[in-house]
Amino acid sequence: MEFDLTTWSQVRLAQVERALEDWVSVDIPLGLDHGAPAALVDAMRYAVLDGGKRLRPLLVLAAHEAVASAEPHGAAAALRAACAVELIHAYSLVHDDMPCMDNDVLRRGKPTVHVQFGEANALLAGDALQALAFELLTPLDGSVDGETQARLCALLARSAGSAGMAGGQAIDLASVGLALTETQLREMHELKTGALLKGSVLMGAHCGRPSTKALAALDAYGAAIGLAFQVVDDILDVTADSATLGKTAGKDADNDKPTYVSLMGLDASQAYAQSLLDQALGALDASGLSNTVALQALADMVVNRAS
Amino acid sequence: MEFDLTTWSQVRLAQVERALEDWVSVDIPLGLDHGAPAALVDAMRYAVLDGGKRLRPLLVLAAHEAVASAEPHGAAAALRAACAVELIHAYSLVHDDMPCMDNDVLRRGKPTVHVQFGEANALLAGDALQALAFELLTPLDGSVDGETQARLCALLARSAGSAGMAGGQAIDLASVGLALTETQLREMHELKTGALLKGSVLMGAHCGRPSTKALAALDAYGAAIGLAFQVVDDILDVTADSATLGKTAGKDADNDKPTYVSLMGLDASQAYAQSLLDQALGALDASGLSNTVALQALADMVVNRAS
Repeated sequence: MEFDLTTWSQVRLAQVERALEDWVSVDIPLGLDHGAPAALVDAMRYAVLDGGKRLRPLLVLAAHEAVASAEPHGAAAALRAACAVELIHAYSLVHDDMPCMDNDVLRRGKPTVHVQFGEANALLAGDALQALAFELLTPLDGSVDGETQARLCALLARSAGSAGMAGGQAIDLASVGLALTETQLREMHELKTGALLKGSVLMGAHCGRPSTKALAALDAYGAAIGLAFQVVDDILDVTADSATLGKTAGKDADNDKPTYVSLMGLDASQAYAQSLLDQALGALDASGLSNTVALQALADMVVNRAS
Repeated sequence: MEFDLTTWSQVRLAQVERALEDWVSVDIPLGLDHGAPAALVDAMRYAVLDGGKRLRPLLVLAAHEAVASAEPHGAAAALRAACAVELIHAYSLVHDDMPCMDNDVLRRGKPTVHVQFGEANALLAGDALQALAFELLTPLDGSVDGETQARLCALLARSAGSAGMAGGQAIDLASVGLALTETQLREMHELKTGALLKGSVLMGAHCGRPSTKALAALDAYGAAIGLAFQVVDDILDVTADSATLGKTAGKDADNDKPTYVSLMGLDASQAYAQSLLDQALGALDASGLSNTVALQALADMVVNRAS
C-alpha cells in the first residue's frame, strides 16, 4: 500500500494543534507560581495557532517514528519537541516581520503580530515564545527523562541561536545589496533556515534511541532538505503569486536580497533542488532505518511544493 | 572573622567575566557545525561584557555555595548557570531599551545596543543571547549531568518566559498610566524582576544537592529579595541622579508608570524594603544551611545599595 502523506500528516497535525492549543495558554501548566498575562498570551496564540504548514513539527515526528518504529520510546518527548520547534519558528517570524527587520504586514493571509498587537507586544510575544519552547522541553511531571530533556534543549538552543537561526538572520540582514558567492549564500541559509530544519530532524531522532549510523544519516538528510527548502523558497518567490504563498511574493527581489535564483538562474536552481532531494533520499537509504517513508514524503513535499 | 562581600564578589566576578568573555564569542565552543557571525556577536558582547552589577550571577554562586559547602558538587554547572542568568538579563535590557519599548539611549553610561548597532541587530542580538543562555546550560562535554542540565533549563525558561520576566514586562507595558493596587503592582514585579532573581537563587541551589527544607527557604529568600530589589529600584528612581544610576533617573515618574513610591510614598517604601530584608534573612535562618553568609550580604546589598 502506498504511503499517503496527507493522511499521515492530518493525524499528527491534529495532535500538534491540540497540544499547542493547550500549551500556549494563560493557564500554563508548567509555570512555577504564576499564570501568564492574558494580553501577552493573546499575541503568542495569534502567532502560533491556526497557521502554517507545520513542516518542522512533522519532521520531528517523522524522524521520531523512523527511529522508534523498532523500539517504541519517547512519544511524549516527540510531541513536546514538535511543538517546541514550531514555537521557535513562530517567534522568528514575529520578530522578522517587525518594522526594523522586514517590515511585513501580511503573514499567512493575516495582519502580522505587530500590526495586530503593536510592536512592543510583538517583541515580547516573540521573546516569550522562545522561552516557552524550552518550557515545553522540560516538563516537571516526569513524562520525559532528564537526559532526553537536556539533549533536546541542547539541540534546540544551538539550532535557534547565534550559530544557527539568529546568526543566519544577522548574515541575511548584512547581505542586502551585496553580491554573495554560492558558498556564502549556502552558509547563510544553512544557519537561517537549515539549522532549525535539521535540528527538528535530530530532535525527533533523539526522542527515540538512534544508532550512530542512523544519526549520521538523519544529519545528512536534514542538511539536504534544509538547503532544498531555501532554494525552493527562492524559486517560489519569483514563480508564485502572493495569494498562493500567503505572503508578499517578489519581496526578496524587490529588497535586493541575494537568492539562488539571482545567483544561478531559475533552471539551475530547480535542478539544484532536485539534486538535494536525491541526496536526502540517498541518506535515508543509507540510514539502516526501515520506516523512513514519512521522511521520504516530507523531503519530496519540501522540494515539489507549490507554496 | 567578618565576611567581606567585596572580596568575595571580586573572586567570583573574575570567574564570571572570564567565562562570559569565552562563551559569548564567534568561536562558540558549543555550536554544532558553524561559528556565529562576527557582526552579531559584536552586538551580543557589547550587551553583556564589562557592565552591570552582576547581581544575578552572584546570587547563583552564593546559593550554590550555601548548598554545596557541606557536600561539594556542581561547580561547573553553577558557573554556567551564573552566566546564563546574566545573558537572560542582558537580552531583556537590550529589548527593553528599544524604541518600541522604553526607547532608552543610555545604559550603564554607554549608548544602548540599538543606538550602537541598529534596531535589527539589537533585536537579533537579544534573541541570540536568550538562546545562548540555554546553550551554556547544556554543554556537550559531560561536565554537567543531564538531570542537572534539564532542571536548570526548566527553571531558566520559566523565569524568563510568559509566566516570568516577559510576562511581567507585558503587564508593565499595559499598566502605564493606570492606577494599580499594591497587589497588582507586586504581581507585576514578581514576574518582571522577581522571577529571574528568584530563579537565580534556585538555579544555584539546584547545582548542588539541596534538601527540600533548604529549597523552600531559598525560594522564600529569593521571593523577598526579588521584590525588595524592585521596591529599592523605585526608591532610587526618585532619590538618585542619572550619573549614579548609570541610566536615566526619574524615568518611571516621567512615563507615568506605577511605582511603590507613587503608591505608598517614600518613607513607607523604605520601611517595606527593610521588612523584606528581614524576611529574606529570616528565611536563611530557617534554611538549615550553615554557609549563608554571602546570601545574607547580597540581600543587604540589594536593599541598601546606592545605585
